[in-house]
Amino acid sequence: MTDPTDRHYDREFVRSFFTSPTAVDGEDDSAKMLRRAAQLRGLEAPDVWVPDNEDATAPSMRDEGARNIAEVVSEHGADFPGEIHPRVVWHRDSPETRYRGFRHMLEIADPENGAVEHIDGFVIPEVGDLDDWKKADEFITIVETEHGLEPGSLSMSVIIESGEAELAMSDLRGELGNPSNNLERMFLLVDGEVDYTKDMRAMTPTGELPEWPELRHNTSRGASAAGLVAVDGPYDDIRDVTGYRGRMEANRAKGMTGIWSLTPGQVVEANTAPLPPEDGQWLLDDGSGEVELREENGRWAYTGDSLWIEETDDGYRFQAGAETRECDADGLREELLDRASYVPSMDDIVDSMEQFEAAKEAGTGAIAMTREATIEVDGVTVDIENDRMWDEATYQAAKTPITLFQDVYEHRPDQHDELAERYSEDVVERATAVGE
Amino acid sequence: MTDPTDRHYDREFVRSFFTSPTAVDGEDDSAKMLRRAAQLRGLEAPDVWVPDNEDATAPSMRDEGARNIAEVVSEHGADFPGEIHPRVVWHRDSPETRYRGFRHMLEIADPENGAVEHIDGFVIPEVGDLDDWKKADEFITIVETEHGLEPGSLSMSVIIESGEAELAMSDLRGELGNPSNNLERMFLLVDGEVDYTKDMRAMTPTGELPEWPELRHNTSRGASAAGLVAVDGPYDDIRDVTGYRGRMEANRAKGMTGIWSLTPGQVVEANTAPLPPEDGQWLLDDGSGEVELREENGRWAYTGDSLWIEETDDGYRFQAGAETRECDADGLREELLDRASYVPSMDDIVDSMEQFEAAKEAGTGAIAMTREATIEVDGVTVDIENDRMWDEATYQAAKTPITLFQDVYEHRPDQHDELAERYSEDVVERATAVGE
Amino acid sequence: MTDPTDRHYDREFVRSFFTSPTAVDGEDDSAKMLRRAAQLRGLEAPDVWVPDNEDATAPSMRDEGARNIAEVVSEHGADFPGEIHPRVVWHRDSPETRYRGFRHMLEIADPENGAVEHIDGFVIPEVGDLDDWKKADEFITIVETEHGLEPGSLSMSVIIESGEAELAMSDLRGELGNPSNNLERMFLLVDGEVDYTKDMRAMTPTGELPEWPELRHNTSRGASAAGLVAVDGPYDDIRDVTGYRGRMEANRAKGMTGIWSLTPGQVVEANTAPLPPEDGQWLLDDGSGEVELREENGRWAYTGDSLWIEETDDGYRFQAGAETRECDADGLREELLDRASYVPSMDDIVDSMEQFEAAKEAGTGAIAMTREATIEVDGVTVDIENDRMWDEATYQAAKTPITLFQDVYEHRPDQHDELAERYSEDVVERATAVGE
Repeated sequence: MTDPTDRHYDREFVRSFFTSPTAVDGEDDSAKMLRRAAQLRGLEAPDVWVPDNEDATAPSMRDEGARNIAEVVSEHGADFPGEIHPRVVWHRDSPETRYRGFRHMLEIADPENGAVEHIDGFVIPEVGDLDDWKKADEFITIVETEHGLEPGSLSMSVIIESGEAELAMSDLRGELGNPSNNLERMFLLVDGEVDYTKDMRAMTPTGELPEWPELRHNTSRGASAAGLVAVDGPYDDIRDVTGYRGRMEANRAKGMTGIWSLTPGQVVEANTAPLPPEDGQWLLDDGSGEVELREENGRWAYTGDSLWIEETDDGYRFQAGAETRECDADGLREELLDRASYVPSMDDIVDSMEQFEAAKEAGTGAIAMTREATIEVDGVTVDIENDRMWDEATYQAAKTPITLFQDVYEHRPDQHDELAERYSEDVVERATAVGE
Repeated sequence: MTDPTDRHYDREFVRSFFTSPTAVDGEDDSAKMLRRAAQLRGLEAPDVWVPDNEDATAPSMRDEGARNIAEVVSEHGADFPGEIHPRVVWHRDSPETRYRGFRHMLEIADPENGAVEHIDGFVIPEVGDLDDWKKADEFITIVETEHGLEPGSLSMSVIIESGEAELAMSDLRGELGNPSNNLERMFLLVDGEVDYTKDMRAMTPTGELPEWPELRHNTSRGASAAGLVAVDGPYDDIRDVTGYRGRMEANRAKGMTGIWSLTPGQVVEANTAPLPPEDGQWLLDDGSGEVELREENGRWAYTGDSLWIEETDDGYRFQAGAETRECDADGLREELLDRASYVPSMDDIVDSMEQFEAAKEAGTGAIAMTREATIEVDGVTVDIENDRMWDEATYQAAKTPITLFQDVYEHRPDQHDELAERYSEDVVERATAVGE
Repeated sequence: MTDPTDRHYDREFVRSFFTSPTAVDGEDDSAKMLRRAAQLRGLEAPDVWVPDNEDATAPSMRDEGARNIAEVVSEHGADFPGEIHPRVVWHRDSPETRYRGFRHMLEIADPENGAVEHIDGFVIPEVGDLDDWKKADEFITIVETEHGLEPGSLSMSVIIESGEAELAMSDLRGELGNPSNNLERMFLLVDGEVDYTKDMRAMTPTGELPEWPELRHNTSRGASAAGLVAVDGPYDDIRDVTGYRGRMEANRAKGMTGIWSLTPGQVVEANTAPLPPEDGQWLLDDGSGEVELREENGRWAYTGDSLWIEETDDGYRFQAGAETRECDADGLREELLDRASYVPSMDDIVDSMEQFEAAKEAGTGAIAMTREATIEVDGVTVDIENDRMWDEATYQAAKTPITLFQDVYEHRPDQHDELAERYSEDVVERATAVGE
C-alpha cells in the first residue's frame, strides 16, 4: 500500500554532496579538514556533507577517521546547516572491507560518542547487485537495533561504480517495502565515475573520464522510480568553473539535480546553479549555437559575428553563416523569432505561475504567455513577441525549479539572507508562496 | 508457443498519432473539434486518431467528452480512414482517476451507443509498473465481457511518462501470453515527454523539453522486443516544420517510426516523412556537416563555402575548412568519394531490391550496386562512382522503408491518389510488388 | 560462492574479431579463404578468428563449410596464434535453423576430425531471450558430452542483433552459476548492428547504419557485469580507416575494447588502436575541437587557423573564434593551460605508474604528476605546466591500457617483435613488469 515514490526523507532535493577527508596524517590535528568543513555556513555549506572515510582518507588512517567523525560531529553537528552522511568503506567483492565498514558504522553511531543524533545516514560505496545493497541495509539495521535507535532513522545512500550496481537500480523499486529488508531507508543514488570507468575498463586518449550519458540517465531514472535523489560524481578539474556549470546544466536536463563537490567553491556553484537566475536572458541561435544577447537601453543586442542584417532598398538582407536571404520586415521578425529563446528569471517563472493559477481559478484551462523583446543586430532593431501556451502540464513542468527553491528555503534558513540578496525580499516571498 | 514479436494487430507501422479535444466549453457544439477531425482524409488523416479525453480536454468536460466520442465515432467512424483509439483518464497514483477512466471506457464501448464497432482500442496515459498496466488491461477485459465484444478486440496503448513505466517496458515481453492477463492486446508505446520531464524533475534554462535520447531508445527497443509500435511524443513548436522533420529523422534512426501530431499540418508531415523521397539526392560532407548538392544539367553542384577546389599546374588544390592538400585527379576523386553520400529515392530503392532479387534467383548471394554522379565544385567537375555490396542482410535492412510503404498502401486507400501523384503510378506499382 | 566477474577464460581482452567465409562456391578449393586466414600471423592475426558458417557463407554452402572448418582447423589450428571460435547458424525464431547449427557444432567438434583441440568455442548469432541462449548452451553441453570433451571447455559467444537479446544482457549476470545451465561458458558479447537495425526497423536517409550508442553502452555494461568481453560489430566501409579508428576510440570510452574486422588490414588497425601510442601528443582546443599540435625543436606548434595570439604593447591579444581578450603573460598561460591536454605515450603511462608505486611504497597516498610543454602559436611561445593528482583510484583507472598490453603480451608471442619495434625493448620490458 505504500508507494515508493512517496519520498519519506526530509530533503526532496540535494544540490551539493561535499566530501571531506576524515583523518589526515602528519597534521597536529588529524581531524582538521573535518573541523573546517563542519563550520561551513550559507552557500558554502553543502546540502549533504560527507565525512569521507573511504577514498579521500588513507587506508591506514580510517580507524582514526571513524573516531574523528564521531568527535567532530558530536561537537559541531547540532549547528551544521546541512545533512550529515559519513561514507564508510565497502566493497561488493571483499567481505573483509564490508566488515570493516560495519564496525566503523557501529562506532560512529554509538550514542555514547554523542554524534548519532546529528547523523542522517551512511554512504555505501562500491555496491554490486541488490543483494549486496541488502547486506549494507542489514548492517545499518543492526546498528540501529544495537544502539536503540529508531528503526529507519539512518538513511542509506550508495555510490554507483560498477555495471552490476547500474543494473541494480532498475530493480530497486520492486524491492522497496519488501518485509525482509529495510531498503525504504534509501536516500541518494550517487554516480562514481572514476571507479565506474575502471570497472567498465574504459579508456580515453588523454585519461579524461568518459561522459557516461547512459549511466547518468539510468541513475536519474532509478532515483525517479524509487523516490530517491540522483547525484552526479566528482568533477576533477576544480579550476574549470565553466565546465562544472556545463556539466550541471546537462545533468539537470536528465533530472539529476545534485552533484559532488570537492571544495567549498564548488559547493557554492552547486548550491546556486539549479536555482533560476536573478535576471532573464534572451538567447539567439546564430548558427554556431545559442549565444547570449547583451541588454542595453531596453534592447537586446547581438555582438557575435556569425549573423548579419542589412537594410536594402526593398527590405532586408539576412545572413547566418553561409546562408543569405532577402526578406521584408515580417520575414525578418519571423526569422529572429525562430532563432530567439528566453531564459526566464525566478521573477518571470513566479509571475507566469501566478498568472496561470489566477486563470485556472477563473475557470480557464490554458492561457497564452507573451514575452516581448527588441532585438538589435548590426544597428537594425526588430520587435519580437513570443507566445507560449500554458496548460496544466506546462505549469507542472515549469514548477520544478520553484519546488526546488521552496525545498531549499525550508531546509536551509542559513541561506535566507544570501537568497534575499540575490533575488530581493519580494521575489523570495512570492516564490515561497506560489504553487502551494 | 506464441511469439510476442508476431504482431497480431492490423497496422504494422503507425506514422501519425493525432489527438483531438473531446469537449470544448463555450462552443455551441462542444464536439466541434472531434467532428472536424473525424472528417479528415488522405494525408491529413492520421494513421491513429486519438479523441483525447485526458490532457487536451478540461477535467470538468470529460464526462461530456466521453459521450461526445461515442456520438461522433458512431456517426463518422465507419468512414474514417485511420484507426480510432480514444485516450481516457488514468493515473498510477490515483484509484479515483483509474475508476473514472474505466467508466468512460464502459460508456464509449457500449454497443447501444453505436461507436464500438469503429473503436480499435484505448490509450492509457500515466501508467506505472507493469502491475498498473495489468489493471488497465483487466478493465478493458471487463468492458469486452460486459458488452459482449470479442475478447482482445480492443487494443491497449500506453503513454510512457514516468521512470517506472520506462522500466516496465523492459519486462513487458516476458508477460505477454501469460494466462493471467490479456496484455497481448498491447499496440502502441507512446512517449509523453512533458509529463516524463516533470516526473524526472528535469529542468532546462529556457523551459524547452530535454531530448531524452535514452528514453526514446528504450521505448523503441521495448516495442521491438514485444512486437509493438513505438511513437514519439508531441512536438510543441507547431510552426517549426524543420525541427519536426529533424526530430522524426532522429527517431527513425532509433527505430521509432511514429510521432504525435497536434495539427492536421503536422499529420501531413508525419505521414510523409518516413516514406522515401521522390527524387534521389547527393550530399557532400564539407566539414561543417552533410550539405545537399544542387542538381543542374546532370551535375551535382556544391554551393556552400566551406570547401574549395582549384586547378594547379600539376593537379588540384583541395581545401576543406582549415585543411589544404595538393592532389592529382585520382586523389581528388577519392577525396570527393569519401565525402559524398546518396539519399536514394523510392525508385532507387525498388530498383536495387529488384536487382538483388534477380541476382539471388540466379544463385548469386551478393552483388555490387554502383551509383555514379558528376560533382561540381568551383567549376571543377569530378566523376565519382560509389560501389556498395548488397547481401541478404543489406537487402533485409534496406527493405524497411518499402515494407512501411506497402503497409501504408494496404491500409490507407484514401492516400493512393496522393501517393501516385508523388511517386508516379509506375513506381507505386513496382513498390507494392517488390520483396513479397 | 563464485563471482561471475571472475573471468575464467584465458584472454581478458579481445581486440579483434575476424570473420572468414567457410566455403566459397566456384573455387577449386572452397576452403581457400579459411586456409588463407588460418595462416595470418603477428598484427594481421586476430585475437579471435571466426570461421563464419553463417552470414559470410551462402546458405547452400554451409554443410560443406562445417566440413571445411574441421579440415582447416585440424591442419592449421595448432599454429594459429589467436583463439578460434567458429560461428554456426542459429535463429531465435527458427527451430530448424537451430537444429542445423547444432549438427554443425557436432561435426566441427567431433574428435575424429582432429579440429576440436584447437577450437576455443562457438559463436551463436541471432539469439533472443536468455531462454534462447540456454538452448544454445544446452546443445554445446551435449556436444561436449557426446564427444567426451571436458565440461565447459567450449566457450559460447553471442551476437546481439535484436531488442530481446539486448534486454537479456541485463539479466545474464543473475543466471551465471545457476545449476541448471552452463552459461559460465559465456565469453564474448558481440553487437551485430546490421541485423539489429533491421530488427528495430530503423531507417536512415542514406541507408548508413545508425550509431546505436545505447546498444553499445548496454553491451559493454552487460559484459562488465557478467565478467565477459564486449565487441562491436562490423565497420562496412573498409577503405575508411579514419572512421574505423574514430569508432574504436568512441567504443573504448564506453568500455568496449574489441571490434569486428572484415579484412587483415582492419585486423591490424583493431590490434593496434587500443594500445597506447609510441609517442606522447599535445592537443589544443581551438574552439573547433581538439587539434594535434606539431612538435618542432622541442616546441609544440599550433598550425590551425581558429586561434590567434598577438603581442601588444602591454601584453597579449588572444583570439579564439569570435572571442577576443587582452591578457598578460600569466593570463595567456592560464588560457592555453585550460585548452591544452596531453595524450600520454606507453612510456609516459608506465613512468607515471612507476612513480606512483614508489610513492605508495614510501607511504604517500597521492602525488602530483607534472607535465611541461612549450606551446607556440603565431610565433609566440608559452611554457605551460600541467599538474594532475594521482591517487589509488587514478592509478587503477590509468592502468587499464597497461593491463591490456600485458594481456596481449602474454597471449600473443607472435606479436612480440612488432611490439618491441614499435615501443623499444626497454619500454616493453617495463610495461610488462609494472603494476603486477
